[in-house]
Amino acid sequence: MAKASFDLDSLTAGVLRGETRAIARAISYVENPSAERLMLLERLFPHTGRAVKVGITGAPGAGKSTLVFQLIPHFRELGYRVGVLAVDPTSPFSGGAILGDRVRMEDSLAGVYIRSLASRGSLGGLSRGVPPAVRILEAAGYDLILIETVGAGQLQIDVRFVADTVVLTLVPEAGDVIQAMKAGIIEIADLYVVNKADREGATRMRLELRAALELGGKPQGWNPPILLTEALHGKGVDEVVRFIREHWEYQQRTGEWERRRQQQLVWELQALVHETLETRARALTEELFDEATLLRIAQREQNPYPRLLQLWQSVHPV
Amino acid sequence: MAKASFDLDSLTAGVLRGETRAIARAISYVENPSAERLMLLERLFPHTGRAVKVGITGAPGAGKSTLVFQLIPHFRELGYRVGVLAVDPTSPFSGGAILGDRVRMEDSLAGVYIRSLASRGSLGGLSRGVPPAVRILEAAGYDLILIETVGAGQLQIDVRFVADTVVLTLVPEAGDVIQAMKAGIIEIADLYVVNKADREGATRMRLELRAALELGGKPQGWNPPILLTEALHGKGVDEVVRFIREHWEYQQRTGEWERRRQQQLVWELQALVHETLETRARALTEELFDEATLLRIAQREQNPYPRLLQLWQSVHPV
Repeated sequence: MAKASFDLDSLTAGVLRGETRAIARAISYVENPSAERLMLLERLFPHTGRAVKVGITGAPGAGKSTLVFQLIPHFRELGYRVGVLAVDPTSPFSGGAILGDRVRMEDSLAGVYIRSLASRGSLGGLSRGVPPAVRILEAAGYDLILIETVGAGQLQIDVRFVADTVVLTLVPEAGDVIQAMKAGIIEIADLYVVNKADREGATRMRLELRAALELGGKPQGWNPPILLTEALHGKGVDEVVRFIREHWEYQQRTGEWERRRQQQLVWELQALVHETLETRARALTEELFDEATLLRIAQREQNPYPRLLQLWQSVHPV
Repeated sequence: MAKASFDLDSLTAGVLRGETRAIARAISYVENPSAERLMLLERLFPHTGRAVKVGITGAPGAGKSTLVFQLIPHFRELGYRVGVLAVDPTSPFSGGAILGDRVRMEDSLAGVYIRSLASRGSLGGLSRGVPPAVRILEAAGYDLILIETVGAGQLQIDVRFVADTVVLTLVPEAGDVIQAMKAGIIEIADLYVVNKADREGATRMRLELRAALELGGKPQGWNPPILLTEALHGKGVDEVVRFIREHWEYQQRTGEWERRRQQQLVWELQALVHETLETRARALTEELFDEATLLRIAQREQNPYPRLLQLWQSVHPV
């Protein structure tokens, strides 16, 4: 993205008018660290903060994308303009390596904007591009954002810092509940969907999941529902929508909403600070360890740690 | 870990003597960013760089830990002292949330040291604690390091920057090859293991995998073997060992060894620079965005981006 082509005024105006091309360009800008992205976010900030964000997470093959596709018309009918951000590299939205370039389905339906984000450059799995991309979509008038993320360990945990409601999608398969428990995923979802519920073992999985959730004692407050769906045929999706909305109401009633949003804000700002310093770190590494130095280190003629220690001491005031 | 208890001389000496407790304490130190860890690594550096590192990656349930357990005695017999670093949160070595605290099996066998590392604080999935932990084990006299990492997208790609040989473990399951291709994993392994080969579909999977690998044209140089194992019963493990060693010989013959080690070094140093700045970033975020400021931002009374822009401009010299 050449700097010369960056026109802050027209980009801002285009996003605020909800123009698809402007949104696409704006998201491309904010995916990567730059001063320009901060300027754009500064302009758009007053128009953000109003969307509800739902994270759809789960292992590859659990049917996350199918669920996302099914949720879209339900939320459209409720009057929402729906934005979808797919961070799962195996998502059909993202395309992934098998399709070569990433597929971008922009404005594929009226009132719906679908966009894949690279999971590269991520911190703890969730793409750092997500919170800025959410802001762009908010400023463009989308008020429900679905965030699809691949489900594995850390990745699923981080979606909590972006989403108001986290939906964990599972499929009836022996050992899946145990895997999820071991990975520490089980506690972070607000809603569980056992998809492909026509398969054998769905009801047993629900029982196992309930038992697993109650291992830590009866939940205080929100009791995460476990819903059975056959997303491919749309079965059970209305229940998912009902409970997502119930979860919002619960949070608003209890003040949890504000608390969680505050957390999201901290995470978002921290990520931006990190990225700023990280960009600097890359340049600094090249300065500190040029080709010749690397060669000396590789040949054990030079110890690399004194320079790192010096850097540490220079950035950490005593 | 209280700073007062850090005794650089005795810790260095303990690690060099191969004392289990010293190794455990040293790894704990180097897992997290600090000036002390850099001092320790500086002392140990002259005694490092001699181990061979093998990454064992694959989805949860593919049998990575079983394979690791089976590889240990084979490499012991070849005269290696074996260190194991498990970064997979679902690994039985790590224990994970289900067992409460992480399990550490230290010195469970003569000449073998097993240690789990948190996957938290990771960059792109692989724990940043891995390269420093490898250095500790090297300095303590371990000359073969097995690194077990959970297999999902980015995580599997990063193990390449630490390991001399990457083994991707798969199980015969419909769609697994496709998933791996989509996630861009297929290209990064040096050796493929189709585990649980007694299951239906193992031979077909091997054919699919070979076809997938040849999609991008016949490989130049190293042609990654695809081996069938039943790791639980030790079947096929000797073949895995044979091909791992053959891969080392291939690399040494072709100069690939040096090139790859240089890459590992760059990644390691870059990660340390990153962590240094990241630690600073956390403190800086707290400075820039204290409680009162956050509240004003949450209530839209203050725009957060001017401060971020200021930070950006202060660390990026024009």
